[in-house]
Amino acid sequence: MRQLIKNVYILTMDQDVTVYPTGYLIIEKDRIAEIGQMSELVYQAEAFEEVTDGEGGLLIPGLINTHTHLGMIPFRSLGDDVPDRLRRFLFPLEKFMTQELAVASGKYAMAEMQLAGVTTFFDMYYFADDLAAAAVTMKSRGIIAETVIDFPTCDSQTAHGGIDYSQNYLPKWLNHELVTPGIAPHAPNTNSEEALIAASQLARQYNVPLMIHLAEMDYEISYFAEKYDLTPVAYLEKIGFLGEHVVAAHCIFISEADIQILKRTGTKVAHCLGANTKSAKGVAPLKALLAAGVPVGLGTDGPSSGNTLDLFCQMKLVGNMHKTVLKNRSAFPAVEILQLATNGGAEVLGMKEQIGSIEVGKKADLVLIETQSVNMFPLHDPYSVVVYSANSSNVETVWINGAVVVKHKELVGHKLKGLQQNLATEMTEFNQEVAKIMTPD
Amino acid sequence: MRQLIKNVYILTMDQDVTVYPTGYLIIEKDRIAEIGQMSELVYQAEAFEEVTDGEGGLLIPGLINTHTHLGMIPFRSLGDDVPDRLRRFLFPLEKFMTQELAVASGKYAMAEMQLAGVTTFFDMYYFADDLAAAAVTMKSRGIIAETVIDFPTCDSQTAHGGIDYSQNYLPKWLNHELVTPGIAPHAPNTNSEEALIAASQLARQYNVPLMIHLAEMDYEISYFAEKYDLTPVAYLEKIGFLGEHVVAAHCIFISEADIQILKRTGTKVAHCLGANTKSAKGVAPLKALLAAGVPVGLGTDGPSSGNTLDLFCQMKLVGNMHKTVLKNRSAFPAVEILQLATNGGAEVLGMKEQIGSIEVGKKADLVLIETQSVNMFPLHDPYSVVVYSANSSNVETVWINGAVVVKHKELVGHKLKGLQQNLATEMTEFNQEVAKIMTPD
Repeated sequence: MRQLIKNVYILTMDQDVTVYPTGYLIIEKDRIAEIGQMSELVYQAEAFEEVTDGEGGLLIPGLINTHTHLGMIPFRSLGDDVPDRLRRFLFPLEKFMTQELAVASGKYAMAEMQLAGVTTFFDMYYFADDLAAAAVTMKSRGIIAETVIDFPTCDSQTAHGGIDYSQNYLPKWLNHELVTPGIAPHAPNTNSEEALIAASQLARQYNVPLMIHLAEMDYEISYFAEKYDLTPVAYLEKIGFLGEHVVAAHCIFISEADIQILKRTGTKVAHCLGANTKSAKGVAPLKALLAAGVPVGLGTDGPSSGNTLDLFCQMKLVGNMHKTVLKNRSAFPAVEILQLATNGGAEVLGMKEQIGSIEVGKKADLVLIETQSVNMFPLHDPYSVVVYSANSSNVETVWINGAVVVKHKELVGHKLKGLQQNLATEMTEFNQEVAKIMTPD
Repeated sequence: MRQLIKNVYILTMDQDVTVYPTGYLIIEKDRIAEIGQMSELVYQAEAFEEVTDGEGGLLIPGLINTHTHLGMIPFRSLGDDVPDRLRRFLFPLEKFMTQELAVASGKYAMAEMQLAGVTTFFDMYYFADDLAAAAVTMKSRGIIAETVIDFPTCDSQTAHGGIDYSQNYLPKWLNHELVTPGIAPHAPNTNSEEALIAASQLARQYNVPLMIHLAEMDYEISYFAEKYDLTPVAYLEKIGFLGEHVVAAHCIFISEADIQILKRTGTKVAHCLGANTKSAKGVAPLKALLAAGVPVGLGTDGPSSGNTLDLFCQMKLVGNMHKTVLKNRSAFPAVEILQLATNGGAEVLGMKEQIGSIEVGKKADLVLIETQSVNMFPLHDPYSVVVYSANSSNVETVWINGAVVVKHKELVGHKLKGLQQNLATEMTEFNQEVAKIMTPD
């Protein structure tokens, strides 16, 4: 399958931040085969099985969501402004999560991400094997990790059941085209040391990514200070947990020494600014992390934490929040923010050779953003337009692994309404439990 | 003209925050005539000239943008991340603003706001008389104020030309159905005391709103400290400038004493969080202002400052930013944020009797937000959905003064493409000047 994308303003996000203001791009099967200026295009339309006229829109690398919980669409808009929402709403209701509900939510969430130009994600939830199958159905690229936590869960009757689960799950999905299996101990303070070490060993044994919530909670910090006189980051280093395959989500409460630990162990960070600030937890020291050379990507966190799965919201917020924290309007210019959402994310996920920029030989994970909508004019600076003006509704066409998954702002091969109805049906019992929690005694 | 809106989840934003989960609303000419539950609807469709089936969408009061500069669309995405952008890009390029360009930009900006559910705005720019006429053409409700500043401008060959301008402009537009004229001294430090007093006197003489940028710049604060040993707020009180008709935009650098001055003079505040934080200026003390009883609404600032004219972006940011500053996830629950964007704005604009909530007898300024799009599901809490999940592309239908100005997400009576082409044509010379500024010497 050979495809042509023509009349596009290509922001390659390669190392030199090369642009093609009036460019074309050729896809050969699943990879980018050629990039050039329209004036140099020598092929006729007949040479391609599919031709997309971008009409001057912006072609960017697929956006990469480095941390999410795709099963959690049912929780969105529930108890948003309530203190300790995690223990009051999320953990109790999660008991009523079923395999069917997780899959229905996962498919819906993948559709939502595709419609917003997110082509790759790192998910941490339950029923990982089923979500992996769902990703194949939805043609989404993702790392899908089973959660390990110190109590029985919706898919395990025993604590730390994610360890046993992963022993079967990890080898099953190795070397898949779209899905990379992973394992995800929930947090340092919600797992025993044995479980953390077991998860870490499994990840090393199968050479798969390991994700953990790290330095996210104030009570997590005091717990490790009291118990070990260590930060959670230092504790994880001490037990040999950290490494290049580890993605630490959040990292809000970290010291300069912690940053050095992350750097020397090769640990990567998923920066989830929207979720972190909506929950009033704080702002991770993004500038310091990057200055130290720690790879950072952007994450939405789960759909109930940040309420969108869309990196446009995150990119805007990175600008507003970090410029303000640093008291410097030149900090994080738009181009650097788009880098975080593309090749930054690719580096965090260990996929930099494959995705994260528009370069010949890389996977054809691409997003065409239209510039016809009212918010997209004028276009003095394309990076500014993408970061400060665009929203997910400007995403026109999306390619993952060479396949068109969104065209003219609609899903290809799936009906949104059907996915939504399926999810609503699966939510029936869950909603009854919601009603019980919401009703005062 | 009698219209019915049926099958809508009405968030009235009245004093009791009344909701009608399955409601209807009747518009009689320009006003809301009836609100009720669908089960109580006694009229047939034939009784109405227009019937809108909301299909379960959310009906909210029109959003109110309390501070903007509608002529500045041409500047959007230009020099966003450059220090002192105001003096390096905006002021120099503003010399090339023409009446035709300001009007083309104003119409485009009004269209953009309508498409985003903004039904009323407070504008501070030049060519106010022409922008007022443009608002009538576009059927937008607005306060349109001519800027007063201490140098010659695009519509005046002398400094403080806005004073003379307003002497003709203000009486011309008094008592208009949609347009309220106003006057807008640019800032305390960009006007002589005489000009500030003259503008203030004109506003009192004609009983019209007065807008000013206040406590926005760090150099503004040091200027008044050095020259008068006063804050800008205290200075304006001293010269008799402040009052109930005054809308102070920004108010970032204000003390507790300043807040008390704002309160006792009846001065209102336009909180422009997106623009303030993107430019790294800081976060206005919203909680303290509201606690003191100072009326506050939300503003986008100009299209080149915040890059969108859309209050959904502002609402989300108010949640994320202020919860974080206050270290309290329960601060500013979604319902309070929507209040700021609706009746808060109405109070700031002195229009609380007419707009800002859905109540019988008030003007029919209404926004129907569809809940079919992928980001709008599920709907456990409608306020959460509007504030944390929705974006401007979810705006389905918009009424201003009883007239439908947006239907099925498209302008009624105007073509967006035509407005954009007109603006692009008027930008030809402006863009040549942009090219000169952008080219290194």
